[in-house]
Amino acid sequence: MRYRDRLDLALIAAESKAGAVAAGVFTTNRFTAAPVELCKEHIKASRIRAILVNAGIANACTGEEGLAKARQMAQLTAQALGAEVEQVLVASTGVIGQQIQISPVERTMADLCCGLKSDGWYQAARAIMTTDLVPKMASTQVELFGTPVTIGGVAKGSGMIAPNMATMLAFVCTDAVVEPTVLNHWLRRGADRSFNRITVDGDTSTNDCILLLASGRAENKIIGDVAGPESLLFGAALEAVLLDLAKQIVYDGEGATKFIAIEVSGAPDMESARAVAFTIAQSPLVKTAFFGEDANWGRIVAAAGRAGVPIAPERVALYFDDVCVFRKGMPVGGSDIEEQATRVFKQKEILVRLDLDMGDSGFTVYTSDLSYDYVRINAAYRS
Amino acid sequence: MRYRDRLDLALIAAESKAGAVAAGVFTTNRFTAAPVELCKEHIKASRIRAILVNAGIANACTGEEGLAKARQMAQLTAQALGAEVEQVLVASTGVIGQQIQISPVERTMADLCCGLKSDGWYQAARAIMTTDLVPKMASTQVELFGTPVTIGGVAKGSGMIAPNMATMLAFVCTDAVVEPTVLNHWLRRGADRSFNRITVDGDTSTNDCILLLASGRAENKIIGDVAGPESLLFGAALEAVLLDLAKQIVYDGEGATKFIAIEVSGAPDMESARAVAFTIAQSPLVKTAFFGEDANWGRIVAAAGRAGVPIAPERVALYFDDVCVFRKGMPVGGSDIEEQATRVFKQKEILVRLDLDMGDSGFTVYTSDLSYDYVRINAAYRS
Repeated sequence: MRYRDRLDLALIAAESKAGAVAAGVFTTNRFTAAPVELCKEHIKASRIRAILVNAGIANACTGEEGLAKARQMAQLTAQALGAEVEQVLVASTGVIGQQIQISPVERTMADLCCGLKSDGWYQAARAIMTTDLVPKMASTQVELFGTPVTIGGVAKGSGMIAPNMATMLAFVCTDAVVEPTVLNHWLRRGADRSFNRITVDGDTSTNDCILLLASGRAENKIIGDVAGPESLLFGAALEAVLLDLAKQIVYDGEGATKFIAIEVSGAPDMESARAVAFTIAQSPLVKTAFFGEDANWGRIVAAAGRAGVPIAPERVALYFDDVCVFRKGMPVGGSDIEEQATRVFKQKEILVRLDLDMGDSGFTVYTSDLSYDYVRINAAYRS
Repeated sequence: MRYRDRLDLALIAAESKAGAVAAGVFTTNRFTAAPVELCKEHIKASRIRAILVNAGIANACTGEEGLAKARQMAQLTAQALGAEVEQVLVASTGVIGQQIQISPVERTMADLCCGLKSDGWYQAARAIMTTDLVPKMASTQVELFGTPVTIGGVAKGSGMIAPNMATMLAFVCTDAVVEPTVLNHWLRRGADRSFNRITVDGDTSTNDCILLLASGRAENKIIGDVAGPESLLFGAALEAVLLDLAKQIVYDGEGATKFIAIEVSGAPDMESARAVAFTIAQSPLVKTAFFGEDANWGRIVAAAGRAGVPIAPERVALYFDDVCVFRKGMPVGGSDIEEQATRVFKQKEILVRLDLDMGDSGFTVYTSDLSYDYVRINAAYRS
């Protein structure tokens, strides 16, 4: 499609012609890419047979022509698999504002179909990469009504965009038999508790999407009651896979040298905890301090203070791992504290815990630091 | 106070013992610095005789001891000038979480008072700098009821914080005779239309404040009616000074190589225009594109799309200076467009105009780019 000497087109297909029950979570960006528009339309229509993904061109801001191209991608896949066009989902990632060329899709569709295999995940994970440095995969198994089922998937994403490469994409499949409403419920909740808790640079792309297919080939007793114990098990397993993939995106964040968890507790409600955690995680001053390995608690406290939450400074406590650096509105004294805090900041993984002591709600955000390389990657030309 | 071989303590005083009518705008950060707390208390009490400002230590997150130190700074100034302690305002900027030493204030107070002069603004502008590269001053004159009055001031600020140097501070003085409520009205409005429209890195410090003193020495007929023509003249002149100072802060933004105005028009209301403008101005991807001189309109459009405003992509138009790069949901074609846009991005000053075509409201934000130097400055150690 765009790159030389590497894969940049991936086909994920259900083995059975019956297809899979599907659920999707899509970008909230108003400039929705053409493939996202198509997915929203197709996903409610029927059981899904396949997902076709290309890397290199986002097919965003491409107007009617872009939508026609996305539909052509679905049509070519449907023809090759003997499916209806509505049974195919399409995803794209890459440069915004360029049109996709259809001829490479036509030329390679037969090869893609012939190459389908049950252990092709690694190649799929590689094919959907843009500026990602590593392919991202995760899977787990769980027993439902005595039947073992598998949940596994791939993801890509590194900043929202790099030299202009839009997007976080994730494709997760399971062989579990699950009611569509239950599948939808757990995907939404799982996304909220994983992909919606990470930030590299705070940007939301035009192409973000998570697609989940459930083939039913495990032939477990159907999970129809969302509140039942088997449903909860499935939900937890799905969430684990999604969180694993989401964290891999942060680890591979553009220019990232650190993986940081910002854990806010003692908030009056989850929205407040979320606001404080994201304000800290997205502060360029906080992110550069992580890069500089400077245990600069003043910046974290200052970021928390502007999050729009009525924090009482005299109640707040701040920890780096287990080192308390700030308590009751004052720094915790002693040069050994500074030393211990600095030691934590030299780690590859850092836990920042902020206790607001106002209530029982909490929220954790995973983020990376802001380095020279982030600037280098994103200041470079698109070509 | 903290630095060697440079001034870092400034005294601004009213010539007359009657003092000046005062107004203030303060940080909304919940971790309010001690001097800000003191100012809020003193400014409503009486006519103000002086402002004492130190650079190097923010006196933020310093608890009761910090508040006592701020009060001591006011007391020493009051004693030296024969004023009441409530007639003195105090401002600090610098490292968070360290206590101020009072002895340098005691030692230098007599010199500060002896050195007071009507043309000392340049020295004051230098004394309040932290990581600022240049001192910031602005002034204007306007005729009120036939009497010429002067408005002039100084400001500091470069990021919110650099190696930990908190704060944007501005001190503006006028000889105009103005009712306190009118003074307050115009300061609030002026701040909203100047300092509240700039962003370097999106952070709000614990110490931000703008103080405005009106001595009345011009002896113009008092401005008592906020809606009167002379009041409007005064407000416009004040706003011009504030905007001039605010823009100087962006020009001197940490690591800044560009000055960018983001002008959003055609919004359904000002809040929407503001949200879109700030989302663009604070996007690290947009800011690195400016640094890289890459006319990457896709990032600007994508940032606008996630601002929470129900933008209709097919109505949006985007211009770089006068070059239209995006219209009706599609890029404006032609390689010459790319060339023209790139030429604009090579300028030191760039105007980005986004027309949403949804209504009549607009908002402009002034910002800088995100460069290697921003990372270098902020990743460096505090020491």
